[in-house]
Amino acid sequence: MLDKLIDSIVDAALEEDLASGDLTTEACVDEGKRAVAHAVARKDLVVCGGRVFERTFHRVDPSLVVTPTLGEGARAKAGARLWSVEGSARSILMAERTALNLVQRMCGIATITRSYVDTLPVGSKTRIADTRKTTPGLRVLERYAVRTGGGHNHRDNLGSAVLIKDNHVLAAGGVREAIARAKARAPHTSKIECEVDSLEQLAVALDAGADVVLLDNMSTEQIKAAVGQTRGRALLEASGGITLARIRELAEAGVDVISSGALTHSAPAADIGLDFEP
Amino acid sequence: MLDKLIDSIVDAALEEDLASGDLTTEACVDEGKRAVAHAVARKDLVVCGGRVFERTFHRVDPSLVVTPTLGEGARAKAGARLWSVEGSARSILMAERTALNLVQRMCGIATITRSYVDTLPVGSKTRIADTRKTTPGLRVLERYAVRTGGGHNHRDNLGSAVLIKDNHVLAAGGVREAIARAKARAPHTSKIECEVDSLEQLAVALDAGADVVLLDNMSTEQIKAAVGQTRGRALLEASGGITLARIRELAEAGVDVISSGALTHSAPAADIGLDFEP
Amino acid sequence: MLDKLIDSIVDAALEEDLASGDLTTEACVDEGKRAVAHAVARKDLVVCGGRVFERTFHRVDPSLVVTPTLGEGARAKAGARLWSVEGSARSILMAERTALNLVQRMCGIATITRSYVDTLPVGSKTRIADTRKTTPGLRVLERYAVRTGGGHNHRDNLGSAVLIKDNHVLAAGGVREAIARAKARAPHTSKIECEVDSLEQLAVALDAGADVVLLDNMSTEQIKAAVGQTRGRALLEASGGITLARIRELAEAGVDVISSGALTHSAPAADIGLDFEP
Amino acid sequence: MLDKLIDSIVDAALEEDLASGDLTTEACVDEGKRAVAHAVARKDLVVCGGRVFERTFHRVDPSLVVTPTLGEGARAKAGARLWSVEGSARSILMAERTALNLVQRMCGIATITRSYVDTLPVGSKTRIADTRKTTPGLRVLERYAVRTGGGHNHRDNLGSAVLIKDNHVLAAGGVREAIARAKARAPHTSKIECEVDSLEQLAVALDAGADVVLLDNMSTEQIKAAVGQTRGRALLEASGGITLARIRELAEAGVDVISSGALTHSAPAADIGLDFEP
Amino acid sequence: MLDKLIDSIVDAALEEDLASGDLTTEACVDEGKRAVAHAVARKDLVVCGGRVFERTFHRVDPSLVVTPTLGEGARAKAGARLWSVEGSARSILMAERTALNLVQRMCGIATITRSYVDTLPVGSKTRIADTRKTTPGLRVLERYAVRTGGGHNHRDNLGSAVLIKDNHVLAAGGVREAIARAKARAPHTSKIECEVDSLEQLAVALDAGADVVLLDNMSTEQIKAAVGQTRGRALLEASGGITLARIRELAEAGVDVISSGALTHSAPAADIGLDFEP
Amino acid sequence: MLDKLIDSIVDAALEEDLASGDLTTEACVDEGKRAVAHAVARKDLVVCGGRVFERTFHRVDPSLVVTPTLGEGARAKAGARLWSVEGSARSILMAERTALNLVQRMCGIATITRSYVDTLPVGSKTRIADTRKTTPGLRVLERYAVRTGGGHNHRDNLGSAVLIKDNHVLAAGGVREAIARAKARAPHTSKIECEVDSLEQLAVALDAGADVVLLDNMSTEQIKAAVGQTRGRALLEASGGITLARIRELAEAGVDVISSGALTHSAPAADIGLDFEP
Repeated sequence: MLDKLIDSIVDAALEEDLASGDLTTEACVDEGKRAVAHAVARKDLVVCGGRVFERTFHRVDPSLVVTPTLGEGARAKAGARLWSVEGSARSILMAERTALNLVQRMCGIATITRSYVDTLPVGSKTRIADTRKTTPGLRVLERYAVRTGGGHNHRDNLGSAVLIKDNHVLAAGGVREAIARAKARAPHTSKIECEVDSLEQLAVALDAGADVVLLDNMSTEQIKAAVGQTRGRALLEASGGITLARIRELAEAGVDVISSGALTHSAPAADIGLDFEP
Repeated sequence: MLDKLIDSIVDAALEEDLASGDLTTEACVDEGKRAVAHAVARKDLVVCGGRVFERTFHRVDPSLVVTPTLGEGARAKAGARLWSVEGSARSILMAERTALNLVQRMCGIATITRSYVDTLPVGSKTRIADTRKTTPGLRVLERYAVRTGGGHNHRDNLGSAVLIKDNHVLAAGGVREAIARAKARAPHTSKIECEVDSLEQLAVALDAGADVVLLDNMSTEQIKAAVGQTRGRALLEASGGITLARIRELAEAGVDVISSGALTHSAPAADIGLDFEP
Repeated sequence: MLDKLIDSIVDAALEEDLASGDLTTEACVDEGKRAVAHAVARKDLVVCGGRVFERTFHRVDPSLVVTPTLGEGARAKAGARLWSVEGSARSILMAERTALNLVQRMCGIATITRSYVDTLPVGSKTRIADTRKTTPGLRVLERYAVRTGGGHNHRDNLGSAVLIKDNHVLAAGGVREAIARAKARAPHTSKIECEVDSLEQLAVALDAGADVVLLDNMSTEQIKAAVGQTRGRALLEASGGITLARIRELAEAGVDVISSGALTHSAPAADIGLDFEP
Repeated sequence: MLDKLIDSIVDAALEEDLASGDLTTEACVDEGKRAVAHAVARKDLVVCGGRVFERTFHRVDPSLVVTPTLGEGARAKAGARLWSVEGSARSILMAERTALNLVQRMCGIATITRSYVDTLPVGSKTRIADTRKTTPGLRVLERYAVRTGGGHNHRDNLGSAVLIKDNHVLAAGGVREAIARAKARAPHTSKIECEVDSLEQLAVALDAGADVVLLDNMSTEQIKAAVGQTRGRALLEASGGITLARIRELAEAGVDVISSGALTHSAPAADIGLDFEP
Repeated sequence: MLDKLIDSIVDAALEEDLASGDLTTEACVDEGKRAVAHAVARKDLVVCGGRVFERTFHRVDPSLVVTPTLGEGARAKAGARLWSVEGSARSILMAERTALNLVQRMCGIATITRSYVDTLPVGSKTRIADTRKTTPGLRVLERYAVRTGGGHNHRDNLGSAVLIKDNHVLAAGGVREAIARAKARAPHTSKIECEVDSLEQLAVALDAGADVVLLDNMSTEQIKAAVGQTRGRALLEASGGITLARIRELAEAGVDVISSGALTHSAPAADIGLDFEP
Repeated sequence: MLDKLIDSIVDAALEEDLASGDLTTEACVDEGKRAVAHAVARKDLVVCGGRVFERTFHRVDPSLVVTPTLGEGARAKAGARLWSVEGSARSILMAERTALNLVQRMCGIATITRSYVDTLPVGSKTRIADTRKTTPGLRVLERYAVRTGGGHNHRDNLGSAVLIKDNHVLAAGGVREAIARAKARAPHTSKIECEVDSLEQLAVALDAGADVVLLDNMSTEQIKAAVGQTRGRALLEASGGITLARIRELAEAGVDVISSGALTHSAPAADIGLDFEP
């Protein structure tokens, strides 16, 4: 992630909190007072967002010094120290909530992603992937959090790959027609993915030359059949109705990718506190 | 909510998805094609975000017509139609994901808030309130969602009221000193709230003239004692360790406000789909 | 004040002056030439805006070195040196006018505010406060200037406290109803202020539980009566028709706050020049 | 003035006031309530800013209808109605303060400028002009206000004309050298103005081919001599120490332009109220 | 292209020209004066940018009416009328230069692209494609212009597909390693393209599973050999040293894509004037 | 050029390329890997844009070190090293294309401008000047490139000088009327330029007091006559139909300025590569 992208998110978040100053800190904390504070995991989590944590404090006060204890992707136990910040007490207090709001979300996503990935059979080549169901404005951070948790990213946006859904099929007049149109018009550098909800549609999509086929809301049995039918002619992605409990059987069914919007849109925030040294 | 505030959030979200165009839609859907689509609840939820839904489609294409079926705050059953959109099929498909990402979050927050509020004893004057633990960049939408679910808002940001926390107390040299400093410096229009973690601290805060006292992570027994000790001299807010299961007993203990960050930071996205008319 | 808030104001101001470069300086001053210049008070003033002065030069050229001679809030005599800047002559000349425009306004406001505050009786607890009648775009700087001159701030914006004015009263159907509605809907952290123009309205406002009452355009006699009638049940703020000549008698009448828009909207610019060392 | 320039100023100003919503209006005023309000001069003034007034209300709510009663530059008597606004009471109340803050400043500048212009002898060709001493962020509005009051604008910014000041002369090694350098490097479409503080310097500037000469802080006698010495070879501009009392004699001395920073940096706000129809 | 993307480019361009107003038009053209003007091709060209032309005038004045005579992609003869604009003469004059600057560039690119495409043998499946060598800030318009001229787009940006160049190969330790790393980490929706400069490298790239191979600066003979060697296992793209004269032979050699940066970075502006009706 | 102006252009350009990250570089290049790369001229060119090159790399990664080999305006031979960059290989690869896109354009313009300037007779006082026909969004860079190539700038924008064109003349009712209106309304610091297409119009323009006259699309014979007729009463600018072949004869005809839009709108990109040290 480029700092410029992080900073523009951080700045908007700080603006929400600090546009009218910080009445409490300005009144209660002397300007010269210094402090040391530690971000501490209150529950087990996967570490994610150290650079975001650092940039948040730096955007408020470039003289704050942020030091990581655990690296990105590390598994932290409850009580573990993640990162520390040292410098003006006022500055730390002003940036605290924004920094925590950001990393709690990032660690939350990395943690749930890791739990999915850890469920895969040993040696499995199946990928756990996100979707475009990310929090508006935070996509770049959330995609990074998925990667940090051991997952993979789906296409970034509507311009980075073709994904033909049911409504596109309807509009184009069929799976074959939709794929043909996409092949004719999309850049030669773009893959063509097509969503199908039956093995019949899958056959058409393969025949039309789809690079990836998304098997929408299929049972594990259907997916097994789809894998058999495809024989490597396209990548297969299972999506819809994905739960942690199904990950193992889907991977064993031989699907290449399992994608789930819940990784990003419904991950609970990780529990992280900022403890000041007395 | 002002449209200008909504629009700036919507624009950033659309930028994430559409900065490179929509390869699939441009290839598969003819320019003149028109469509009608309905946002439908897949599970029970509290309706929230109709204006955001509308603005998202309008920012992509001002000629789209959006019509609400259910009003803000209504309880929708699974299968209920929430809002409809009609016009260029291309435009609808381009805005679909962004619109859903936004309202799924808003309905999710309204729904969980409503579940808390509904747990309050009949006639209770206790408020369910949010915190500043909102999604970075989306605070204005999430606070609105809390209100839509029957909750109340806490202070908007660090400049809209004084909230003295443990670290401020530490820095100022005590609860009494912190409150005195805040009273001397904050605008006369700002309330002074102070966080305490014991009844002894509560006594000092009341004596120092706090307008609101936040009882941090206290047991219901402690909170009952705090209510008895306070006798209306200040508003009492219970926070920390709040769960749905405790709402009723906390309200019955007589606390004025119950605040919970989970309303916003960990609400699961509501399940909403966009169904196109065939 | 956060640097980020200062910088966004400074950047917009520099843009007005420098978007097309500086024809004169580029033509007349060699690139390597260095200079030292001093901001000097041409008349007596209260010093305000050192950080803004510094940021303005730094936004044009981070290598310029700015040194303050007098601290914020100091009383400078005509001829006194306030701040100095040293470095590239080109950079100093390019930033000069923008820097002066900003600090002349800030010192002007601090100076007039100080003259009001100095008129208060010794030991008075009455506050001199600003209003929202600030220069569009410069509110954060002007509120800071008021504090620097010894004054206090009123609410920052329409979301940081409730202030019920005559038109709100009209719309709500009376003072009592307006206050009741505000109490029911505003955050529990927000004070409720109500404007009244008679002692009868004051009685209703107090009875309805206003935290602050604004006495609008009242004579000193009326204000004395209001103070007697209120007996500390709410803060009293005198506003409208405030002049320097009335400050002392209003304070002696016992009002808690005297607020005046003229502190910000009509303060004449302080006279400050930038003298280059020969 | 282009609407786009107005809107960017208006938006920043509204953001200051409304980023956290309007607690009072949302609580006290029903959503459907409509109102009519009139901007009324409390004292005599020159009308300026009708379009800015309108855009401010429109940026909050495009459905508000704004109607002018008096045109730009008209002389309004105390009590005169300037503009009216009709529509949602909530929207009007939210935009009121921002709209007034802007037009009070614009009318204030137009009014003081008009008083200077009206002091000129009948038939005088002398111009009253502003300077770059404008309020940061509001230059475009303030220059317009000067024109509305019958004045003229000086160069807009550092790139629109050359103005050689004492420090440029110093850096270039003399008036002659500075003018020569500017002539060699500035676009052929740019005039060269040079500041002088003696008749000797004036002679050099004329000889070097200055298009305009600024007579800095000169007495009326000196200025008369300068006019005689120049005989139309360049435009002469008097600046520094300009007061209303001197306008007539300076014009009679034959100077082409009288420029004053006070027109913009120290104009008191015009007194304008917004009266709601009962 | 979304209007929002067009508008942000148009706004920045208008800002360059109009931030200080239009002295000439304001002085010489009466406010109420109306005009009709026609954009006319001075030389043969391919029409491109009608929507950009329209938005430019609308961003200055939404009341202007813009009407196209020729559609996107049409071949216009010298003298042909492309688009017309009607309304306020002032507004048209203010927007004229910016509108022309934009469409001259777009038509210039469409025209040169069309000349390349027209050189292809009848029935050829070879694509003419652009590169990322676009004008900074105008990529979205220039890619659209390439499509309008009958060309195709390459990947939009560094995140929309993998393109391994010599320096990536160097850093990864070889073509095989680079492709393996990209396959392991890039989204499953992204194609992997690899640049090669010899047939030996081509063999490795094919073996490693590249989806597309870029043949860099190869002779037509080499390219023929590459096509024979590849036998459809990957798409082949010729790039480097592309001239109009080589298009036909390269297509006949059987390459899938011919890409050239000159389409965008060195296309001369099309000659278009804006003629006002007398 | 101020860094702030450069940076805002650079940031928009980087955003186009890097908003979704750099898939290839992140996959193929290890994070700690360092590199040295040199920008090398592939053909003869005039060096321009060193600061832009440096800022582009710094905006991606402030730790990159950029060193110039040749100064601005130097004539580089094919093969000459222009600038070098050293540091993180990832950062260099991410910024490479954007940096080259910018400097190729700037060097291209400087190079073509220099070729025009070099064609002037020795000792000629005639200026080669640009126009407002610059690339939208890049005007400040392109005007700088013209100066670097030995050319001069025309007015920067519509507010920096008056240029009366045929349509203004038409609207005002004649050359004399247009000039009179401009003189009455434009700032006294602005020159008045008027476009004429005949010697009759020239006579009127001179008589009305134009400071500069633009001779539009005139033959060299006409221009000679115009110079004779003018006798120094105004500057004369030849524009329209300017080619390299005519520069010498136009200068010898005695015109003061020769302006050409082709310098900016149709300059081919200079050929520059970035070579990594092995």
